[in-house]
Amino acid sequence: MTGEPRPGDAFGEVLRAALAQHRGQEQARSIGGLRPRPVVEIVERDDGFIRGGPAAWYLAGPEEWWPSERKALERIEGRVLDIGAGAGRVALALQERGVDVTALDPSGGAVEVALELGVRSVVQETVEGHLPSGERYDSFVLFGNNLGLLGPREHAHRFLADLAALARPGARVFAQGTDPHHSNDPLNLAYHERNRERGRLPGLYRQRVRFRDLATGYLDYLLCSAAELEELVAGTGWALVDVDEQDAPLLVATLVREG
Amino acid sequence: MTGEPRPGDAFGEVLRAALAQHRGQEQARSIGGLRPRPVVEIVERDDGFIRGGPAAWYLAGPEEWWPSERKALERIEGRVLDIGAGAGRVALALQERGVDVTALDPSGGAVEVALELGVRSVVQETVEGHLPSGERYDSFVLFGNNLGLLGPREHAHRFLADLAALARPGARVFAQGTDPHHSNDPLNLAYHERNRERGRLPGLYRQRVRFRDLATGYLDYLLCSAAELEELVAGTGWALVDVDEQDAPLLVATLVREG
Repeated sequence: MTGEPRPGDAFGEVLRAALAQHRGQEQARSIGGLRPRPVVEIVERDDGFIRGGPAAWYLAGPEEWWPSERKALERIEGRVLDIGAGAGRVALALQERGVDVTALDPSGGAVEVALELGVRSVVQETVEGHLPSGERYDSFVLFGNNLGLLGPREHAHRFLADLAALARPGARVFAQGTDPHHSNDPLNLAYHERNRERGRLPGLYRQRVRFRDLATGYLDYLLCSAAELEELVAGTGWALVDVDEQDAPLLVATLVREG
Repeated sequence: MTGEPRPGDAFGEVLRAALAQHRGQEQARSIGGLRPRPVVEIVERDDGFIRGGPAAWYLAGPEEWWPSERKALERIEGRVLDIGAGAGRVALALQERGVDVTALDPSGGAVEVALELGVRSVVQETVEGHLPSGERYDSFVLFGNNLGLLGPREHAHRFLADLAALARPGARVFAQGTDPHHSNDPLNLAYHERNRERGRLPGLYRQRVRFRDLATGYLDYLLCSAAELEELVAGTGWALVDVDEQDAPLLVATLVREG
């Protein structure tokens, strides 16, 4: 056997398992190990770099978020689209504050978990796939490192054009990302350098999520600095009006629709 | 890029990172994520099944062990060889009880960490590689699921013959393993079935450890029931005299050297 996983909704299964564990419904599936294992999301980069992190944070309430995310939360208003909503932690927090929010995620597992947790409006779709809905929003949320969904330059431009098509006048984007240039990890630095050589943005990470026997497809996920973001946004009809770096290397960027 | 990791001492690096985190020396290497990530050991089976678990348990003291391991600890005496000692948690516990113990592990990282943690006698070697030393022992410890090191039938026979060669008269083996037949996970059941079809023991898991950009080689790791173990041991000059299954699916087996 080759060790190759099966293509599927690994991310959604991570969330399903995290919810089950959260609710204490987890079956004692794992064999071996000294004690019950927390559900771990595994992310594999295309250079073979792999890492795992506890999935529980997808269910965390605002009191456990980074301060800069919590601060941004208070500024999100009007009709809101939570993009890549996952288990719906941000949508839930907004909903509890009386904000009209729709959670958008292409993962079937994510949508199921978000509904289970009580998010009232959930759509299983990508941003592009949501265009035909004709809906319009005042705020777009890209939390949980979802600034990364901008992806490569050309994709970022299409993505921002799609958001523009879904935007009401004066709409804003609240995007939490990571500045890769704070890293001193030689594996990351070498990866950035290879990207540069290929004309890619240094922090463009091609990676997939793995869970049990499943793997998502590889996705080009963008880590970028405030300066790189500013350059990326130029000419798209969106203006970068604020970058909160109090939790650096994390950053929370605010874009405003121009004109 | 293909996503293939680099061959190396992934297990040792897990232990090194776990020790660093334990000591609070961890560099903020990881970028992204809501909070500091615990060090996670990732195990990838050759059917593509992957799982991650906190590495911290490699450093756990007896108070955090399974009761059956703790109980067995009190019965380990004489000159002791702790096989696949890892970070040396068992060797340390024995040493603190005044037992003369040597920690054996082929991983350079494991040996370094065990020495760091204060294990006095550490040898970087496999059991086979330790044969020429001419050392003799009263007790062999295979904790932390190291009963799995028996591997496939033929390997188990060689391994037990090697232990016999290292054994003083009346020597005992204390081996903690896992009975795979408690699992109701369809992925495990299918794996067991494929093994049976190939004439392999059902719980023979071919797997490797991954950490960052490293992977160990694939190793045939045996999960077996008490009955399967009894059959495996028959005719080797070792007698299975006790199986403690109070923490099932975990089991702690005691073998005694015959004659």
